[in-house]
Amino acid sequence: MMTKRRTIFFISDRTAISAETLGQSLLTQFEHLQFYQVTLPFVDTLEKARFAVMQINNAEQQSGAKPIIFSTLINDDIRQMIMTGKGVVFDFFDTYMGRLEEELRTTSSHTVGRYHGMVNDTAYNFRIDAVNYAMYNDDGASTKEYDKADIILIGVSRAGKTPTCLYLGLQFGIYAANYPLTEEDLVNKDGYLPPVLAPFRRKLFGLTISPERLYNIRARRRPDSRYSSFEQCRQEVALAETLFQYEDIPFINITTMSVEEIAATVLHECNLRRRVV
Amino acid sequence: MMTKRRTIFFISDRTAISAETLGQSLLTQFEHLQFYQVTLPFVDTLEKARFAVMQINNAEQQSGAKPIIFSTLINDDIRQMIMTGKGVVFDFFDTYMGRLEEELRTTSSHTVGRYHGMVNDTAYNFRIDAVNYAMYNDDGASTKEYDKADIILIGVSRAGKTPTCLYLGLQFGIYAANYPLTEEDLVNKDGYLPPVLAPFRRKLFGLTISPERLYNIRARRRPDSRYSSFEQCRQEVALAETLFQYEDIPFINITTMSVEEIAATVLHECNLRRRVV
Repeated sequence: MMTKRRTIFFISDRTAISAETLGQSLLTQFEHLQFYQVTLPFVDTLEKARFAVMQINNAEQQSGAKPIIFSTLINDDIRQMIMTGKGVVFDFFDTYMGRLEEELRTTSSHTVGRYHGMVNDTAYNFRIDAVNYAMYNDDGASTKEYDKADIILIGVSRAGKTPTCLYLGLQFGIYAANYPLTEEDLVNKDGYLPPVLAPFRRKLFGLTISPERLYNIRARRRPDSRYSSFEQCRQEVALAETLFQYEDIPFINITTMSVEEIAATVLHECNLRRRVV
Repeated sequence: MMTKRRTIFFISDRTAISAETLGQSLLTQFEHLQFYQVTLPFVDTLEKARFAVMQINNAEQQSGAKPIIFSTLINDDIRQMIMTGKGVVFDFFDTYMGRLEEELRTTSSHTVGRYHGMVNDTAYNFRIDAVNYAMYNDDGASTKEYDKADIILIGVSRAGKTPTCLYLGLQFGIYAANYPLTEEDLVNKDGYLPPVLAPFRRKLFGLTISPERLYNIRARRRPDSRYSSFEQCRQEVALAETLFQYEDIPFINITTMSVEEIAATVLHECNLRRRVV
């Protein structure tokens, strides 16, 4: 028997990033259900809101179930318009703003899209500088700027270093470099650090991964190579973990972690100070 | 007269990214107030919750005002513990889960950290592939893989192309390349496209920026150079905009936009299909 899927709408007057964050984190608690998901960003006029209502009502008619709407709508008129549709509206500002105003004993500015919009030049500059830093100092490409690094991630190839560094830069303005531990760095080195890293010992943080997952990632990239053989993965991981332990470098196993989770963990464990909120 | 600043806590059993995103988007409506902000991620045991309560009560005592707490706590016991502190708790799961369960006629799984944690291997792979794509196809470094691109951003140097491509890859799994329009591409070319871009016309999207802001960004990078002179910025921007108009390439002005907002706009305007939710 087919169950009709609910439609979920994420509606915002700006990017809809907050609306998606809110909705997705709630929906992941209902993994056994399947949904159609529709994001409607930049709904900032009554006309666009009217069109959104048409889409909501249409989805209701198609599926026979009320769509669920996660929204972040500052403008009262636009929010009221969305509420005239045949959906169930969870509006984030509607829910919290009153109580927050009361608690802070002041009124809110009712300004659209301050958070992800209306760039703060200083924050933008910090983020861009940090992203550029991550790009120029990726994969051991350059080691000359390690003195500027807030953190240097080390680990075998494909252990999540690059995306984590980029995320740390984009999200938090952190200067993150990364250095790949190659076979040459690891074999017969008795667990000693590569010389280029030695002066920066206190900035080092290790990422490790299960050999099975590493094999899976590498094989997608370069199938049937020595690089992606399971034995190679197993050996490199074992040597890297020995190095971390021998040199007393903090490390985490990222096998089951998302990029956000790796980055948040590094930030937390290393007590890094973010440059942008 | 000094007003004591409120302390804001973001508390989560996982990364606290959702708690921060949601709390920040509420707080931006109170721009006239200043806050101390403290993020407590990975509060996943009663002991850690008890320590968080100590920090909350301490902040209350220091400032004489109840701290505001934005939290995403799945575990009822941990949430209850946080609520024993002298803060005002805005817990997103607590607020919405009951009504959502009712509406969906089912119970939630009460599983910690599904969203930003517990990686979905396929989504992880898509994101990593897209980030690698963005890195290898950044700044016109390679143009061989443009057939694989979902989108190719074009614009003058420092118009926001690189961070936008990385964000599109990380957040949505979109393959985004970028090509810098250099003086050589622009001057005396009568608004024609660089030959390398011509076959991919339908994938092109332009980013432009005000000459003033561009000057500001370039001067931080290479002060007192021809590259960063205001006249150079003005001329390049004018020529790039002429090119976009002449060749009928859609474009946006990113002067007052954050990276998230540029990326969300590109996604929306180009009707790109995300590979990860």
